[in-house]
Amino acid sequence: MPELRKDPVVGRWIIVAPERAERPNAVVRALPDQDDPASCPFCPGHEAMTPPELLAHRDAPSGSNGRGWALRVVPNKFPALRTEERMARTGQGLYDTMAGVGAHEVIIETPEHGRQLPQQSPEQVEQLLRAVQERILDLSRDVRLRTAVFFKNSGAAAGASLSHPHSQIVALPLVPSELEQEMSGARAYFEEKKRCVFCDVIAQEARERSRVVLETDGFIALSPFAARGPFELLILPREHRSVFERSSAAELQSLARALRLSLRKLDLALDKPAYNFYLHGLPLREEPSDWYHWHLEVRPVLALAAGFEWGTGFFINPTPPEEAAAFLRQTEA
Amino acid sequence: MPELRKDPVVGRWIIVAPERAERPNAVVRALPDQDDPASCPFCPGHEAMTPPELLAHRDAPSGSNGRGWALRVVPNKFPALRTEERMARTGQGLYDTMAGVGAHEVIIETPEHGRQLPQQSPEQVEQLLRAVQERILDLSRDVRLRTAVFFKNSGAAAGASLSHPHSQIVALPLVPSELEQEMSGARAYFEEKKRCVFCDVIAQEARERSRVVLETDGFIALSPFAARGPFELLILPREHRSVFERSSAAELQSLARALRLSLRKLDLALDKPAYNFYLHGLPLREEPSDWYHWHLEVRPVLALAAGFEWGTGFFINPTPPEEAAAFLRQTEA
Repeated sequence: MPELRKDPVVGRWIIVAPERAERPNAVVRALPDQDDPASCPFCPGHEAMTPPELLAHRDAPSGSNGRGWALRVVPNKFPALRTEERMARTGQGLYDTMAGVGAHEVIIETPEHGRQLPQQSPEQVEQLLRAVQERILDLSRDVRLRTAVFFKNSGAAAGASLSHPHSQIVALPLVPSELEQEMSGARAYFEEKKRCVFCDVIAQEARERSRVVLETDGFIALSPFAARGPFELLILPREHRSVFERSSAAELQSLARALRLSLRKLDLALDKPAYNFYLHGLPLREEPSDWYHWHLEVRPVLALAAGFEWGTGFFINPTPPEEAAAFLRQTEA
Repeated sequence: MPELRKDPVVGRWIIVAPERAERPNAVVRALPDQDDPASCPFCPGHEAMTPPELLAHRDAPSGSNGRGWALRVVPNKFPALRTEERMARTGQGLYDTMAGVGAHEVIIETPEHGRQLPQQSPEQVEQLLRAVQERILDLSRDVRLRTAVFFKNSGAAAGASLSHPHSQIVALPLVPSELEQEMSGARAYFEEKKRCVFCDVIAQEARERSRVVLETDGFIALSPFAARGPFELLILPREHRSVFERSSAAELQSLARALRLSLRKLDLALDKPAYNFYLHGLPLREEPSDWYHWHLEVRPVLALAAGFEWGTGFFINPTPPEEAAAFLRQTEA
């Protein structure tokens, strides 16, 4: 049974999830980036290899858990958290624990084993974002869940244990520290200046241009001023928006174009790097706010976090973000 | 020229260090864990391949930067920070920057190319810790420097770009966020309870035993209750101590035994894993405090931080710390 444990000094929560030790490639080795479709649990015809689907996009009504789908969402077979846990909180001496209540879902983006996200059509990427929106809205009905995070690991070096194109949603019973810190920084900025810090970033970047990678009608992709690593990207709605799951269909369409184009540029510029991305938005069920602004952070895996980064929380970035942005701007994708 | 940049939302500082892009293996690929001694800049006879030494242990007075040493400390040839920078701080619109003043030193632990730290004698490990103490005391004389962090990356998967046994010291012009968070958590605990949180952890662990890996006369090695990953270890002085560099010779000797034995157990239990460790102590020139307790954190590299960890600051640990500790206790090293 997964358990949440809180570090007594820094307050950081971790999940002890022994089930995850059983998943393929739990320990990092040199992994093949391409595994065999014949044994791939995400390929059509292998629907029985995953837990029953939570959502699927099918053109014809061909019945659940059979073929004929364009996208499927299923529970993770090796979940970090489970919805069926009761919400027990206990102390053990000076330590705090919480039962690992939550959800861990996998979005199988396409039936095509080898069609990675940057190679998918704009409509496919849009379909993925619509599924994410739908799942987050559904998860937000469970009041035990406080936050849902949509993320993707692409490539073995980015932590993917299967190559078939997929992304994930984890829902947590609390607000995790990275989001908490962001929210608290944005709240403090708003209290002082009565402006959204992300809106101010967008305004300054749109003026200076040196770190802008691309713009669509509704979105802007930047190489952030304090990027933690080479070619890190930040994709934001240009208008102030704090709750991703309230996005309109037109906004999701524009985000799909910005995300797809950003990933295609990274693919070309860096020769198909492994990468992670994740979406930061307000916690579940919160009303839209003036001070927070949802966004996607994209991080190609080009350097490893090592002793210095772990020990300090400081990152060393060998590539000035201005150089990364200039390079990506001129990459035709 | 390296530059420190502050994230406008979360306040995290990063270092833009373009020089580091030129170092060997700046981009992660499958690296050989054993490189060739003939071209190794840390091997005896190749002293001219490193910048001039800052400190060396030699039995006979054989002159600086020649052979005959047992340990050398040299500036990092690809530094993340430089001492010669002036301490300029500037704003760029809403962004804050600081010149990358600091120090980045490499400790070459032994002339023997293949003798990794766990295979070194207790006296060699002690010699390493004495050199660290000496260098930190020297760095603390530069009032521009606020914190010094001793750390080690061992193995390519842990971010080491050379296999010859070495560790590093980075001195920074500020207190980095990981340390700041730890200090602020420990300070709050002390204000409430008038006790050191680390001393309370040691007392509870010594009573419960389930997470204790080993004890020497002065030190205890634990599998921490909220370990971020499998087989993470925490090594602390059993008596309350807040400033590492004030350690007595006997304390360093006892720490050397605890660290060496911990690494030998990890080597045997996990078949020579890549690992990182780093030392957390009070910032430079601070007086000993009642509320902080210095320690070493050791992290074998068995899982990758991926989208979920980066996006949330949450870690998923598939191995309960109690199981890791039990396994390491019974590993004879």
